[in-house]
Amino acid sequence: MSRTAKLELFAVPDLPLIKEGDDLAALIFQGLSRAGIALRDGDVLALAQKIVSKAEGRGVALASVTPSERALALAEEVQKDPRLVELILSESVRVVRSRPNVLIVEHRLGFVMANAGIDQSNVGPTDGVERALLLPVDPDGSAARLRAALTARAGCAPAVIITDSFGRAWRRGTQGIAIGAAGLPALLDLRGNPDLFGRTLQVSISGFADEIASAASLVQGQGDEAQPVVVVRGLSWTAPPNPAAELVRPAAEDMFR
Amino acid sequence: MSRTAKLELFAVPDLPLIKEGDDLAALIFQGLSRAGIALRDGDVLALAQKIVSKAEGRGVALASVTPSERALALAEEVQKDPRLVELILSESVRVVRSRPNVLIVEHRLGFVMANAGIDQSNVGPTDGVERALLLPVDPDGSAARLRAALTARAGCAPAVIITDSFGRAWRRGTQGIAIGAAGLPALLDLRGNPDLFGRTLQVSISGFADEIASAASLVQGQGDEAQPVVVVRGLSWTAPPNPAAELVRPAAEDMFR
Repeated sequence: MSRTAKLELFAVPDLPLIKEGDDLAALIFQGLSRAGIALRDGDVLALAQKIVSKAEGRGVALASVTPSERALALAEEVQKDPRLVELILSESVRVVRSRPNVLIVEHRLGFVMANAGIDQSNVGPTDGVERALLLPVDPDGSAARLRAALTARAGCAPAVIITDSFGRAWRRGTQGIAIGAAGLPALLDLRGNPDLFGRTLQVSISGFADEIASAASLVQGQGDEAQPVVVVRGLSWTAPPNPAAELVRPAAEDMFR
Repeated sequence: MSRTAKLELFAVPDLPLIKEGDDLAALIFQGLSRAGIALRDGDVLALAQKIVSKAEGRGVALASVTPSERALALAEEVQKDPRLVELILSESVRVVRSRPNVLIVEHRLGFVMANAGIDQSNVGPTDGVERALLLPVDPDGSAARLRAALTARAGCAPAVIITDSFGRAWRRGTQGIAIGAAGLPALLDLRGNPDLFGRTLQVSISGFADEIASAASLVQGQGDEAQPVVVVRGLSWTAPPNPAAELVRPAAEDMFR
């Protein structure tokens, strides 16, 4: 990785509340343009998962969900709404841990995470309908499409990541990570780069997109979605791009699930 | 957390290679002063663990280490230098996972991490002596002392974090985290803050110092220590400070060790 002299992060201003069908690339481009901000090559746009999910229509009315027997039993154990548990199970390949108030699953995309990433906060009951919001169907694909649309408008090719906040094993508190990425090496393999003294680096594979997501999270904030899109400016990299799927440790390599 | 409009990260310029006994606060202050940069209230200084360990004399000559029987057996299993394994065990309370090329332990400070955080890269064999570098004895205490020393020089009170790169369960690649912190809420409890629609947040405890560490890691880089200290400017918070020890999930609460 080339040396980064200065990193700047700022929110895309004046985004409206996002709803199904919204053209995120157009709204981002308009928000930036109105503020007189031009995107540059090397910029990374970090979008909170929630707005991508909303734009893609991933909200599900809870009233439309009929919990299975399995969901009913699990809901009793974990003390959650059985309809929510049904949705969690439908998005998952495996329950990793379940306890009262805790339901950690392996999401169909391989993420080990609480509640399959399904969110009930900030969903916005504008019509009185109680909704849950699922992760995008294909976050790497969403990032690639957003990148193409932004590139077409901006005349340069920013990278795009889709961010979420995950709980961690061993550590308290959530940390921003990337569930989707396009145009940058989400996983950055520095093996073989010598250190200052010519010794080959020991720890040398970096979760580059996850670190960008954590940085963006500091500006996105939690608790509202008024700043869901952040521009990260000043990074440089030379490695070829790879998607956020590369950040998922295959179950066969994982010692902790 | 108050809204962050813009975040800037830049490296403290012109730091020398750090050696035992160096006064890090003085070197940081001098580096900033020569560049005409004044610290401000609210700035966070992110120091790579390596330079803190070096300044504190945590380098151990491998030739001085006599491996125990236990270390010899474990070294054969994990295919590491028995003297290094002896040091790892001496810094740990428990081996969490061991396999060829993998030794994950619970560090005496509670961190679940590879090799007890002991690093052989970038240690700098200036005198031909092969050294390993242990974590600081008390990283929260180190951060507090650095903060006090910087505050005395700078006339304002920056926060300080000590950063490291940790591997993660479930995800590939390392991510910056904070092993020490002073002057900010390392763990930021947002529970009770309503979201935009008045619903109480579900995921609402943030690893604030870890996210700052990840952001700083993007500027620190890996593979050299030429930019080991990064100023993070533009954050704001209202919660009272707590140390990085708060980020360690107690074993009794942990489902994954």
